[in-house]
Amino acid sequence: MEIRELISEGKGKRIYATDDPNLAVLYFKDEATAFHGLKRGRILGKGEINNAICRHLFTLLKDAGIENHFISTLDARQSLVKRVQIIPIALKVRNIVAGSLAQRIRFPEGTRLSSPVVEVVLKDGEIDESLINNSHVVAMGLATVDEMNYMKGIARKVNDILSDYLKEINIELIDFKLEFGRYGDQILLADEISPDSCRFWDSQTMEPLDIDRFRYNLGNVEQAYQDVLHRMMGPEEN
Amino acid sequence: MEIRELISEGKGKRIYATDDPNLAVLYFKDEATAFHGLKRGRILGKGEINNAICRHLFTLLKDAGIENHFISTLDARQSLVKRVQIIPIALKVRNIVAGSLAQRIRFPEGTRLSSPVVEVVLKDGEIDESLINNSHVVAMGLATVDEMNYMKGIARKVNDILSDYLKEINIELIDFKLEFGRYGDQILLADEISPDSCRFWDSQTMEPLDIDRFRYNLGNVEQAYQDVLHRMMGPEEN
Repeated sequence: MEIRELISEGKGKRIYATDDPNLAVLYFKDEATAFHGLKRGRILGKGEINNAICRHLFTLLKDAGIENHFISTLDARQSLVKRVQIIPIALKVRNIVAGSLAQRIRFPEGTRLSSPVVEVVLKDGEIDESLINNSHVVAMGLATVDEMNYMKGIARKVNDILSDYLKEINIELIDFKLEFGRYGDQILLADEISPDSCRFWDSQTMEPLDIDRFRYNLGNVEQAYQDVLHRMMGPEEN
Repeated sequence: MEIRELISEGKGKRIYATDDPNLAVLYFKDEATAFHGLKRGRILGKGEINNAICRHLFTLLKDAGIENHFISTLDARQSLVKRVQIIPIALKVRNIVAGSLAQRIRFPEGTRLSSPVVEVVLKDGEIDESLINNSHVVAMGLATVDEMNYMKGIARKVNDILSDYLKEINIELIDFKLEFGRYGDQILLADEISPDSCRFWDSQTMEPLDIDRFRYNLGNVEQAYQDVLHRMMGPEEN
């Protein structure tokens, strides 16, 4: 397998084509951005940590019956994945109020929701991330209602699986963002699941262990990413 | 029936209690506001026109099988309605891109949507009107998923009925906002359907015949409201 041209570059990774049209390579970067690119920086070691966390969580999800794009890690910063056509929306699942949700529903940050909120936002690379719903997605021709309901169902299952798993390692899954892609006639969970795309709070202290430490200058950013990885890997792999 | 205390006052009307706990009176005002109250003014005769338009459209909807709160007009500015507990959300149905939708889905104003968009916004009297979805409504305890789907279904039927009717009088229904209320164990279409709550464009010229004339200083505001009423009433009632 040979790595070919850059297909796209996002906040946290680059995606490369390969000589196989069904395969792509993810390269995880140390670069970090926040506030839609207005704040930029670097979290040392983040690329390697997120690559390892993605392998761990995508494998765990696959074992729990959630098909996804992950195939294998290639080296410390790169993973081989199925080459999907990303559907240009993101699904956000929220268990506890944080970020933009506080303003949207006028609930204080930290409120545990009586049932999870599932939001759909339009990914378009512009400054503002628009909340949309099934009817927007259908009118824009991005997916059908059945496809949307399928993705929302998967997102809720992922929430159940990850919330349960993370509780065992003393992490509260506050909210997270998923992306999906078309692969033949399948829709596969894709992109990444990492402290860049999730809010992970320590279950005891409720301190963030994720990109919010960078966003809001909370300090100990690298340590938080390492801490999440170490909790996932367990003592035998440390 | 005796009119009692003011229950609430909105942008375009006041709602009064009566001596019957199941009845309320709507009083339609000439006052107009835009941009969440930042722009205020008066559209002469608007109260009487909207009262007549609401009678006309709620009767038309009832005849088409859509139960609603309207009972009868009391005088030029007042109508008797079933006293519902308003659910603090509004449903917006959109057929052609206008207003906030252009920015939300990055489609140019005036684009005809391939299928209607149905949006839900939180009504809370604050400056900003938040777009929300079923999962927010459920987490906030405002309504169940079944109730939301019922209201969305009614909103789509209202769209079909009104769009067809308005085409006959050379009006294009661009978008509109509906509110619903609880009445016993029923959910009833309530509030108003008027040029204050709808975008009506002339089918030939695509000129607005609604509150946008006030919002954007397009002139001939009173004439537009009268024009809509006259088209609805037909020549024999002019």
